[in-house]
Amino acid sequence: MQIRHSKRIRVYYEDTDAGAVVYYANYLKFFERVRSDWLRELGVLHMDLRQHYNAMFVVHQANLQCHRPAVLEDELRVDVAVQSHRRASMVLHQSAHRPAQDAHEADELIASCTVTIAYIDCSTLRPKPFPQRLLDHLIL
Amino acid sequence: MQIRHSKRIRVYYEDTDAGAVVYYANYLKFFERVRSDWLRELGVLHMDLRQHYNAMFVVHQANLQCHRPAVLEDELRVDVAVQSHRRASMVLHQSAHRPAQDAHEADELIASCTVTIAYIDCSTLRPKPFPQRLLDHLIL
Amino acid sequence: MQIRHSKRIRVYYEDTDAGAVVYYANYLKFFERVRSDWLRELGVLHMDLRQHYNAMFVVHQANLQCHRPAVLEDELRVDVAVQSHRRASMVLHQSAHRPAQDAHEADELIASCTVTIAYIDCSTLRPKPFPQRLLDHLIL
Amino acid sequence: MQIRHSKRIRVYYEDTDAGAVVYYANYLKFFERVRSDWLRELGVLHMDLRQHYNAMFVVHQANLQCHRPAVLEDELRVDVAVQSHRRASMVLHQSAHRPAQDAHEADELIASCTVTIAYIDCSTLRPKPFPQRLLDHLIL
Repeated sequence: MQIRHSKRIRVYYEDTDAGAVVYYANYLKFFERVRSDWLRELGVLHMDLRQHYNAMFVVHQANLQCHRPAVLEDELRVDVAVQSHRRASMVLHQSAHRPAQDAHEADELIASCTVTIAYIDCSTLRPKPFPQRLLDHLIL
Repeated sequence: MQIRHSKRIRVYYEDTDAGAVVYYANYLKFFERVRSDWLRELGVLHMDLRQHYNAMFVVHQANLQCHRPAVLEDELRVDVAVQSHRRASMVLHQSAHRPAQDAHEADELIASCTVTIAYIDCSTLRPKPFPQRLLDHLIL
Repeated sequence: MQIRHSKRIRVYYEDTDAGAVVYYANYLKFFERVRSDWLRELGVLHMDLRQHYNAMFVVHQANLQCHRPAVLEDELRVDVAVQSHRRASMVLHQSAHRPAQDAHEADELIASCTVTIAYIDCSTLRPKPFPQRLLDHLIL
Repeated sequence: MQIRHSKRIRVYYEDTDAGAVVYYANYLKFFERVRSDWLRELGVLHMDLRQHYNAMFVVHQANLQCHRPAVLEDELRVDVAVQSHRRASMVLHQSAHRPAQDAHEADELIASCTVTIAYIDCSTLRPKPFPQRLLDHLIL
């Protein structure tokens, strides 16, 4: 799977818990930031969709795996790839790595997630086809 | 100041940070839960206000003081009192205590906050008078 | 699967997002609160484990499904059941329902999650057997 | 007051609430991110302080003012200035602006905060002098 967008995300106090590691639910926030940045880059803006199309993305399923703990001050590389897609839904694969400190080591996988996203009408909550800009990008 | 509403709030992992204490911004969440419960008890519901009156409460100012750390598993007593009020805004005093373990000790003050709340029209963002039920309660 | 613990959780502003529904990652927080309450009821306290056994629970996997949106003011019934277990890990099934308003309707399933939890030594990060109190309860 | 550090912070779904604006407590998170980046730039790292000096920063007071709502997709400019300082505590002034869309307009002030920070020993919770690197920077 080809990475569509990647972003560096720093771990702050707000992201950690009393175990001194990133609180597991917060990886879902990190993954969502990267998805939003990817969509914005394609010209697909949440606020536009709402105001002009009365539509929004919803998460139907998120299968999160936590591989290694991340800690305060870590800077993670978080990315998004498209695993499969249809006209009104897609399955994304996302992962967070801690980049290697030197060239002899590999990046460490911290967390990964498979996310199923649908696109729906805000009033009826029924699925509708993705914006054309996103569809064009998905079939690349 | 007379306490208008009080609630027990447990500290979970989500509320703590890598310092092994409650993350300071989360006290504002605790205080908001108590305000919402107090308003609900008066029959003033956020969803009703939005749907039937196109109105909502907004926080203009919150002056938070952190006195002692609270930790995982603590059960805090969080309350709300009315410091002063006008027709479209009020100043609330809120505090979070850790109840004493035995009768010889006093409850420990963990955090306190003075919050200025206004009531506004969702479209114009202009202030409007509080719902009558709330006004009736405020002058008690 | 038998429900081991159940809890009412109110939806506050902090739990919602600009879609006017509960932000999906926050269901993981709700599920964690119920797990912690269940463990506390069994006499298994996170703080005790840390201080006396240098041990903690970690989430290895969380497979979240979002079925219907929950909104501000909803009071959800959130529960935990044990799907399977071993000596140092367990798979829990958790769900959040919106209770029916009258007796003719069924509770609505809002979100569900399968969570894999391990118990590890805080220093080595290696698995270790669950506390006996939890093991005793698991085999019931 | 001279701005010591500034950062662009994007508003994501996680930051908003059902009022379709940034949830007020989340401004405290934004302000903390900027403080942490500023300290890191000075070579003062939270993890180092903990591990090598058994010390940490704590927030004693945060006086937050919310001036205008920020919404999903906004990119705010968040900064930190030093209002006053002593050897073991400092008062910071922080603000979040929405940059003007064209040159004829002024940046809009969204939120501001005065934060009192102390530096303490993690075991005794007693104040101790700031790290020298920070003291050197403060008197500039």
